[in-house]
Amino acid sequence: MKINENYLSLQDGYLFSTIAKKVKAFAAENPDAKIIRMGIGDVTQPLVPTVITALHEAVAEMGKAETFRGYGEEQGYSFLRDAIRDYYQTKGVTLENSEIFVSDGAKSDVGNILDIFAADNTVLVPDPVYPVYVDTNLMHGRKIVYINGNIENDFLPLPEHIPAGESIDIIYMCSPNNPTGAVYTLPQLQQWVDYALENDAVILFDAAYEAFVRDSALPTSIYQAKGAEKCAIEFASFSKIAGFTGTRCGYTIVPMALVRCGVDLNKLWSRRQATKFNGVPYIVQRGAAAVLSDEGYVQIMQDIEGYLENTRIITDTMDRLGIWYTGGQSSPYVWIECPNGMGSWEFFDHLLTKAAVVTTPGAGFGANGEGFLRLSAFNNKANVTEAMQRFENSLK
Amino acid sequence: MKINENYLSLQDGYLFSTIAKKVKAFAAENPDAKIIRMGIGDVTQPLVPTVITALHEAVAEMGKAETFRGYGEEQGYSFLRDAIRDYYQTKGVTLENSEIFVSDGAKSDVGNILDIFAADNTVLVPDPVYPVYVDTNLMHGRKIVYINGNIENDFLPLPEHIPAGESIDIIYMCSPNNPTGAVYTLPQLQQWVDYALENDAVILFDAAYEAFVRDSALPTSIYQAKGAEKCAIEFASFSKIAGFTGTRCGYTIVPMALVRCGVDLNKLWSRRQATKFNGVPYIVQRGAAAVLSDEGYVQIMQDIEGYLENTRIITDTMDRLGIWYTGGQSSPYVWIECPNGMGSWEFFDHLLTKAAVVTTPGAGFGANGEGFLRLSAFNNKANVTEAMQRFENSLK
Repeated sequence: MKINENYLSLQDGYLFSTIAKKVKAFAAENPDAKIIRMGIGDVTQPLVPTVITALHEAVAEMGKAETFRGYGEEQGYSFLRDAIRDYYQTKGVTLENSEIFVSDGAKSDVGNILDIFAADNTVLVPDPVYPVYVDTNLMHGRKIVYINGNIENDFLPLPEHIPAGESIDIIYMCSPNNPTGAVYTLPQLQQWVDYALENDAVILFDAAYEAFVRDSALPTSIYQAKGAEKCAIEFASFSKIAGFTGTRCGYTIVPMALVRCGVDLNKLWSRRQATKFNGVPYIVQRGAAAVLSDEGYVQIMQDIEGYLENTRIITDTMDRLGIWYTGGQSSPYVWIECPNGMGSWEFFDHLLTKAAVVTTPGAGFGANGEGFLRLSAFNNKANVTEAMQRFENSLK
Repeated sequence: MKINENYLSLQDGYLFSTIAKKVKAFAAENPDAKIIRMGIGDVTQPLVPTVITALHEAVAEMGKAETFRGYGEEQGYSFLRDAIRDYYQTKGVTLENSEIFVSDGAKSDVGNILDIFAADNTVLVPDPVYPVYVDTNLMHGRKIVYINGNIENDFLPLPEHIPAGESIDIIYMCSPNNPTGAVYTLPQLQQWVDYALENDAVILFDAAYEAFVRDSALPTSIYQAKGAEKCAIEFASFSKIAGFTGTRCGYTIVPMALVRCGVDLNKLWSRRQATKFNGVPYIVQRGAAAVLSDEGYVQIMQDIEGYLENTRIITDTMDRLGIWYTGGQSSPYVWIECPNGMGSWEFFDHLLTKAAVVTTPGAGFGANGEGFLRLSAFNNKANVTEAMQRFENSLK
């Protein structure tokens, strides 16, 4: 009996546990402090009314023999895949239903997709990065090459920044980015697609925050770049755009035109999912379809506008203080440079102890995150306003 | 870019698609035939009232800011893990909450658990078998050794039946079994546990049908055997016992005492799930907890008794016809020998065309299934009664 020894090379997921410990210690010493949390990537608004109604209706169906549903359609119910297909049509992207796979969330699929690729591919990962991209590859011993995000490239690295001499097979991209909130332009996406096509690579495009893009000039899908259907898999989710972090529904797009080693990747992924997954609850799929209804979409957009109003409060503060930042316009995250040359954890401690505001140290997302901090707008307006006042006062 | 070439060695999942094609052709030629389906492994009874109430309450909570839930507790909400722990206490099995991992179903976890084991382990799989055990290992190129189930051993192979000279690392067991419905006794389970302990192997025990065991002398958990906490991982599910096939909730037990290569497997699985999974919907976890409430459990047991009444109708018919079978007493499945020396597909065609009854050919579950048929009791009493009358008439 041998275990998978690659697991032993994983670092403990210490970032959020370290934060939790520090916050707990602070709270114990300062029982009266009203702590404001701007560190989490979790939503705070409840599910919208149209979704709640759809969920109740689906629950009622499950209680009656005539409308009860057992195993569902293998890759998701048609009513939901139709809705996703129509949603992509509004982005100018034409999909077939067979290219859409409903899942329990982007996080699962971003990791599970690696099943269909050999272990000896080389993976390109930006730094700073969502730690799951790194860990899921380390678990199978894949070689990882990092590409630097920094102030010089606005935390939007391009193919020209790939370390010289590296041959890349799999490319992770996330736009709008977690943790930086930065968004690629269409010409920049096109550069990546052209690179992938030229180098027989596959792009894994994480679009979990796509609905936060309100500027119609910015892309919300990799398939808006020409030829992407021949080199890209896209992951999306209802988690951040519709408050589904605790309701669990996402989807993955594997185009029919995506062929590697003479094999349709759509067919491989379909086989993987049919073997190792058994679908998303019928109830939840009804809720997800309601998100994409006309009425539901108007309602979730009100929540998103609320979060984006919070980011404006944050970025206005940074502008006033002359602090460099990216993100915020098309993302719930604002990525700021720590003032006065402070390190990530130093400024984190400063804000916790001087302002009772919890943030996320950029160093937790990779070496290039050192000296930066992620502020999350997933909170209510009153809290964000007060947090920013305290932030400003703490620097006086 | 290289794909995972192990996928190319997988056979297409042709069993149920072949059945579907044959049924479709028959229906087209016989538009008036009232086809009765006894081939599916899907439940037919709706969710019980206590579960429906819990689901509605949870949906309502998700619609209000004060009670909304985002990301849940990492390995499942405490309220559900407490309920599972208490349920196991009624089986005489003491668990800690940290040994219980809530999942979206046993199928996902039975495949995903393999992530934590090296690819060069040797896997023991019974034949006939649930195809997922085989395919998930072929996907990673693991060596598979088959152990024969047959009439001689009542389709309950024991360590003595392991092919000579094979060194086994991972052992798949399913009791009550899918497809045969056979159930191991406690002394038989103990033989497997002793074998695993002596050979440093790990048992993957699929207990998805545990609640169908109504005979208190029969085990419902591998942990009822002595020492199993040092060699076994157990998978269970609400799918078959409470009609959750379309609602999706299961759980996996990895005991703290289970150590291999000096590493706690609980810690490895926890790391796997925290990285590649994001939990089960809060709403669904509330529904699952309601299954294990006093009231809910009484209600699901009524449904199970109904399915078991169907199996009695089936086994009474086989007794009368002198057809050999196993299963049925503690399982929704009855595994019968095809009469008159017919092959699996031959008898399948016979029942379809002469009785308009759909079954599952045993050959679809492995070489040893040839000459056998699986009958499923997931149907209503009237249909099963009529199907058995037609079955009997077709042989006259």
